[in-house]
Amino acid sequence: MKIGIVGLGLIGGSLGLKLQNMNHTIYGIVNNKINEEKAKEKKLANFISCDPSLLKECELVILALPIKDLISPSQRLIASIPKEAIVTDVGSVKEPIVYKWENLHPLFIGSHPMAGTEKKGVNAGFEGLFKNAKWIITPTQNSNLNALRTISELIKAMDCEICQASPKEHDEAASLISHLPIFLASALIDTANTKNNQSLLDLAQKLAATGFADTSRVGGGNEKLGLDLAMNNQINVLNAINNFKNKLNKLESIIKEKNWELLSQKLAEAKEIRKNFIN
Amino acid sequence: MKIGIVGLGLIGGSLGLKLQNMNHTIYGIVNNKINEEKAKEKKLANFISCDPSLLKECELVILALPIKDLISPSQRLIASIPKEAIVTDVGSVKEPIVYKWENLHPLFIGSHPMAGTEKKGVNAGFEGLFKNAKWIITPTQNSNLNALRTISELIKAMDCEICQASPKEHDEAASLISHLPIFLASALIDTANTKNNQSLLDLAQKLAATGFADTSRVGGGNEKLGLDLAMNNQINVLNAINNFKNKLNKLESIIKEKNWELLSQKLAEAKEIRKNFIN
Repeated sequence: MKIGIVGLGLIGGSLGLKLQNMNHTIYGIVNNKINEEKAKEKKLANFISCDPSLLKECELVILALPIKDLISPSQRLIASIPKEAIVTDVGSVKEPIVYKWENLHPLFIGSHPMAGTEKKGVNAGFEGLFKNAKWIITPTQNSNLNALRTISELIKAMDCEICQASPKEHDEAASLISHLPIFLASALIDTANTKNNQSLLDLAQKLAATGFADTSRVGGGNEKLGLDLAMNNQINVLNAINNFKNKLNKLESIIKEKNWELLSQKLAEAKEIRKNFIN
Repeated sequence: MKIGIVGLGLIGGSLGLKLQNMNHTIYGIVNNKINEEKAKEKKLANFISCDPSLLKECELVILALPIKDLISPSQRLIASIPKEAIVTDVGSVKEPIVYKWENLHPLFIGSHPMAGTEKKGVNAGFEGLFKNAKWIITPTQNSNLNALRTISELIKAMDCEICQASPKEHDEAASLISHLPIFLASALIDTANTKNNQSLLDLAQKLAATGFADTSRVGGGNEKLGLDLAMNNQINVLNAINNFKNKLNKLESIIKEKNWELLSQKLAEAKEIRKNFIN
C-alpha cells in the first residue's frame, strides 16, 4: 500500500521503518529541511519531503503529529490529503482530535498505539517500538466501515493487539494509566530535588537506583506531550489527580496511625491488582 | 574468604551466586527445610543449612534478612556469629538496624546495596543483580576501621560503587528516592483500579503500557518490605509524602488555572533534574 506518514518523530519514524519492512511504500512528511536530511539518512520512509503534496497518491495517511497540530492542522496539510485516502492519527488524546477530523475528512478513524519511550524527534524512531503493543482504535457512529477494516488489518499486521473504545472512554482510561503517571513522576522528581539541602540532594542523587529511575521515567519525557495532555484532557487529568490524592491521603493516614496490618493489606492488594494491568 | 550469608532471598541469594563466582566460600543460612532444598538446587551457597551454627568458621557474615528480623534478631543467630567475624547487613533502613547491631557486635558496619527487583524468596536471586549498583555503607564513630576497610574492599570487588553516609542521612535520602516511590506506586495502582466502573477498568487494564508498568513497578513488590520501611522510617516517609503532596498540589493548581506556560516550564525542569538522579 502507498502510505503517507505526516511527522517522522518517535511514533511516525518507528512506523516508517516498520511499514517499509512490511513492503509498503512510505511517503514521509517532515517540518523542515534539517529533519528531512536526518530522516533520509535514517531511511525513515521511501520518499521524504517537507511538502505535503507528496501525499497525493497515498491510499492511507497516518497523522503522527503533536496533539496541538492534530487539533489545529494547517490548511496546506488538509488540502494535500487525497479525498479517497483513509486517514488515521496516533494522538494520545482522542475526543478533540476525532471530532475535529471527522468533520475534515470522511474516511478518518482515530487511533492510539500504546507505545513510547522518553525520546523524541527524527532520531527517536526504531522498528521494534510497536512489537506486541496494544493499539486502540476509536471509531464513532460516523465511521466508515471500510476505513475501519483497513486500519484494523494494518494494525494487526504489525503484530499489535487491537482494542476498540469510544474517544470519550479512551480519554478517561488513558488519563488514569498514561497521563496521571506523567504528573506523578514529575512531582516525584521535584520532591527528590531538595534544593534547600545540598548534602541531602547529593546523597539522594547517588542513592537513586532502578526504583527511582522507573517510577520517575515518564516524568523525564517530552514536556510538550505532558502539556498537550493536560490541555486537551484537562477534566479527566484533574479527576485522576484528585482520585490519586484521596488514595495517597488514605495511605498517609494509615502510616500516621501505625495501622500496620491495614498497610500490609493495602500493599498486598495493590501488588495483586497490578497484575491485571501488566501483560 | 569464608563468608556467611544469613537469608538467601533476592539479595542474599544474588550475593551467594556472585561471591561464589569470586572464589569465596559461602555458608548460607535459610529459615526452613523447603528453602534449604531450593537453595541447594539453585547452588546459592557452597554450604546451606537451617542451623546458624554453620557460621562458626566465617570471617565475614552478611545479614540478608527482612528489616524486622534485623531489628529483632533471634538469640540463636546472635550466639552463632563468631566474635572475630566482621558483620554487615543489607537492610533498606539503617538507623534502627545500626544502633541495634553496634551494641550486639563490635565489628558491625551497616550497609545497603541499591539494587532490587519486585521478586522475593530463594528463587529470586541472580548473579547480575549488583552489576554497577551503588552500595551505601553507614559507619559511625563507633565503627572499627579494619571492618570498614574489609567490607569496602569486598563491595568494590563486586563492581559496585561505594557511597558513605551516616545512618540518619541514608534514611532521609532513601525515603525520597526509594521509599516514597513504593507508596506512590501503590496509590497509583489503587487509583487505576476503578472498581465502581467495570467497563472503564477493563479498558484501563487493556491500555496500560510501559508508562504504567514502570511507574507502578515498585508498588508490585513485596508488601513486607513496604511495611518494614513505613514502620522503621516512619517520620522520613511521612515527610516525603507530605513534600510530594505539596508538589502535586502545585501541578494540580497550574492545570486547573490553565497556566500552560508554567506547566511546560515545570515539566521541562523535572526532565532536566531527573538526569542528575539517573546514571
